[in-house]
Amino acid sequence: MGKVKRIERVAALTKELVDHPYELYSFTDFCERFDVAKSTLSEDVQAIKNGLVAYDLGTIETLAGAAGGVRFIPYHSRASDSEFLKALAERMAEPERILPGGMIYMNDLLLSPKILMRLGEIMMNRNKGLAPEYIMTVETKGIPLALFVARAYNVPLVMARRESRITEGSAVSINYVSGSTKRIQTMSLPKRALPADARVLIIDDFMKAGGTAKGLQELALEVGAEVVGTGFLIATSEPESKMVDEYFSLFVLNGIDDKTRKTDIRPNC
Amino acid sequence: MGKVKRIERVAALTKELVDHPYELYSFTDFCERFDVAKSTLSEDVQAIKNGLVAYDLGTIETLAGAAGGVRFIPYHSRASDSEFLKALAERMAEPERILPGGMIYMNDLLLSPKILMRLGEIMMNRNKGLAPEYIMTVETKGIPLALFVARAYNVPLVMARRESRITEGSAVSINYVSGSTKRIQTMSLPKRALPADARVLIIDDFMKAGGTAKGLQELALEVGAEVVGTGFLIATSEPESKMVDEYFSLFVLNGIDDKTRKTDIRPNC
Repeated sequence: MGKVKRIERVAALTKELVDHPYELYSFTDFCERFDVAKSTLSEDVQAIKNGLVAYDLGTIETLAGAAGGVRFIPYHSRASDSEFLKALAERMAEPERILPGGMIYMNDLLLSPKILMRLGEIMMNRNKGLAPEYIMTVETKGIPLALFVARAYNVPLVMARRESRITEGSAVSINYVSGSTKRIQTMSLPKRALPADARVLIIDDFMKAGGTAKGLQELALEVGAEVVGTGFLIATSEPESKMVDEYFSLFVLNGIDDKTRKTDIRPNC
Repeated sequence: MGKVKRIERVAALTKELVDHPYELYSFTDFCERFDVAKSTLSEDVQAIKNGLVAYDLGTIETLAGAAGGVRFIPYHSRASDSEFLKALAERMAEPERILPGGMIYMNDLLLSPKILMRLGEIMMNRNKGLAPEYIMTVETKGIPLALFVARAYNVPLVMARRESRITEGSAVSINYVSGSTKRIQTMSLPKRALPADARVLIIDDFMKAGGTAKGLQELALEVGAEVVGTGFLIATSEPESKMVDEYFSLFVLNGIDDKTRKTDIRPNC
């Protein structure tokens, strides 16, 4: 490789850092890989931090000591996040999305990697203190969001199934009562998916009464994990009393009027 | 905002570009947003390109003209990709992954955002010419990989379901014969998920006989889309004759020996 200019190295360093939020890169490794002295690297990292902060694109954290290093934490300002969520709520409320039975079609929005990436970062930023070691969800519609929340925290995803699969080995199963339909359902998790005492954040796309979320919490406890939080893209305002006590959601759905084709959905800002 | 140094601006520009592969940013928008002249921006973009290329982290494409702009294309060298796939194959072959019935437990690997991101980029890079407008998969295990392939191409994902859901509106359903079990199964796709003539790349985690993949192809055709390719993380070498004619896979699984606990899985390099 020929001589690389400082500004070129900074571009490469930025790419490495922002690609993997929360991943701690040791100064020593970076010095070797980018062939620079530690003092120069420190200056580069400071410049990257300044640039990201100036344009509201995240920040860089530096951890001192032997186990230290440097990592990227994505964030946008509260105002910019609110604006993003407000615009998304407007799209979700488009009358042509209303399906028979008062449901909303949202696949085109919630399967877009660009939208998912931002949603994952917002969820992470609003709940940084939870410090989960795993994100947990249940098939199927919660998976895309949960995966991008996992990306934002830089932790793996675990996925409960509606039935256990032979490709996943021995499993723990629980029965739970769906809050809306009152039917008894089954959900299972491979035994080896979560180590005991793992800190787990439960993520799903939608909560009405909270039966599925309650089931996920019980399943996590059953394998000895600790549930540090439960979050949804959308929670309905009715019923007011949910089967889970503490949760957060990015949006509140107040109602869908089939006749007037009006959807009342608002971001939690 | 105070005066931002060039090197800081380059860090911010890099972040914006690499966050969204294939997203075309217009020069005019970038000039406004980063408050620079077009000539300066061009130099910045060139520096970013040089830096990324020098460290094997991707490249920047510049498109001239009124509809032009600048975009990031992720890639790593063929050698680096092969090394990554080889290391992953070694992990997949770990004896403790073998489950009763000759299956392999891989959830911990295939639900890791970091691994998924690289796999998505490799799949995209090896099949750039396909230029898909949508990635299509079927629930459940193919979703995470398909989502990161979608991210690498910067296109949305569409998801077929094993049964149609009221939350997705009217759907097109097909019956197909599972290649392995020879059972008749159903798969459906919301009618509005794919526009007619859309270029669709089918992605799934695993192919043995190819029955599910064949079903996905038929479902795509049924809604009037064009299937431009079919790709898998892993395809088995047996049976040699598959129900789909053309496909690609990142790995070939030659066999799992339950007794010796040896898995023969190799990357396609």
